Amino acid sequence: MTDDMTKTREIKALVFDVFGTVVDWRSGVAREAQAFLSRHAPGLDPFEFADAWRREYSPAMEEVRSGRRPYVRLDVLHRENLVKVLSRRGIAGVPDAQVDALNLAWHHLDPWPDAVEALYRLKRRFIIAPLSNGNIRLMVDIAKRASLPWDAILGAEVVRAYKPSPRVYSETAEILGIAPAELCLVAAHNSDLAAARQCGLATAFVARTTEHGAHQKTDLEAQEAWDFVVDDLLALAALLGCTA
Amino acid sequence: MTDDMTKTREIKALVFDVFGTVVDWRSGVAREAQAFLSRHAPGLDPFEFADAWRREYSPAMEEVRSGRRPYVRLDVLHRENLVKVLSRRGIAGVPDAQVDALNLAWHHLDPWPDAVEALYRLKRRFIIAPLSNGNIRLMVDIAKRASLPWDAILGAEVVRAYKPSPRVYSETAEILGIAPAELCLVAAHNSDLAAARQCGLATAFVARTTEHGAHQKTDLEAQEAWDFVVDDLLALAALLGCTA
Repeated sequence: MTDDMTKTREIKALVFDVFGTVVDWRSGVAREAQAFLSRHAPGLDPFEFADAWRREYSPAMEEVRSGRRPYVRLDVLHRENLVKVLSRRGIAGVPDAQVDALNLAWHHLDPWPDAVEALYRLKRRFIIAPLSNGNIRLMVDIAKRASLPWDAILGAEVVRAYKPSPRVYSETAEILGIAPAELCLVAAHNSDLAAARQCGLATAFVARTTEHGAHQKTDLEAQEAWDFVVDDLLALAALLGCTA
Repeated sequence: MTDDMTKTREIKALVFDVFGTVVDWRSGVAREAQAFLSRHAPGLDPFEFADAWRREYSPAMEEVRSGRRPYVRLDVLHRENLVKVLSRRGIAGVPDAQVDALNLAWHHLDPWPDAVEALYRLKRRFIIAPLSNGNIRLMVDIAKRASLPWDAILGAEVVRAYKPSPRVYSETAEILGIAPAELCLVAAHNSDLAAARQCGLATAFVARTTEHGAHQKTDLEAQEAWDFVVDDLLALAALLGCTA
């Protein structure tokens, strides 16, 4: 038996990073930002706006990870970050309801073209769930709109901590009633996989080379010998024996 | 507009009691108990055994609800209760692995005949999720086996408290980002609905008159004027405008 087959037989559940791995956040946020900017700041590039908003993501979560701030949902952090980005660009006087509406852009993201079919295939053999920093309602809205057939919504809000805090990976295995090695994290980000491996999880890297646009420089390839390395989720399904 | 229609327009999400409301726990547990008892205690009635096991359910959770014991998953309580029931019936010397296997009976329950189709219909219009005292893995296993198309697994483990503690209902609305009145609990048990109503939730009673067998005496009908009262979940779907 090959190593892949041994590993596959051990895995009971697959959990997925979502932003960048399952859905294309940048195009989705830019699409909704475009409509907003055309009213409030015509001339600003909606993709640049999406990138600026996303740059606030990790520092905002770090406040929670470090313990300086108690856990709050990602929807709350996203809105605070949005207010910052608007203010820095001199966009003022926007009614609260319009800021709220733009904040929902993260709830309306499209899946990568391979994602839905691959999840349906993988679901037949494995428990599948998001392991995202996004909160439960955010994950539910994305899944309903995109028809992602999750078995459960796991991740940050269930354990009240943000990746890459070890608790998120370890407690998720515990919730699923399985050993860490029986749980595989699927992600397009080497750092996420490294943290999962530290906790004993199996790891699958999926290359999403345009997550940050055509000139992406990070996470173009696997930086460690992850258990599975694939170009998309259909390839992962095939590797794990889940064919059409 | 009728009251029903106003109420329906307000509701954004439906959460369901599961044991008794969506699945037939008694027949499922008795089925697996039968195989077990035929080896270890032939002559014992598997339905009586299921009832005895279920009678330990509420007192065990009360230890957690009262604060005398920190939250532990229902799988753990079920196993402790099983050991008690076996011991009281003088069934001794059963290998741990066989006790573990019987404990999984709760993971293998069949849905009532109307449940799956009704949930598919309701899912098109509402967020649907279990709001059970069962833990996440237990709910996932039931859902995968029975094809229950939940949008998320909510309930006791997510908030680390047991119904009818008010936290379970209130925090679930908060997690979903909606007002309590926009959340409707669907349950076959008047006491569950009363606790939900206390927290401001909408309420739907579904009559499950054989949950406890042919001679059931409790919860045969609605004991308060719940917002919706139906004979099965397909009738609820129709009442909420979700037809085939």
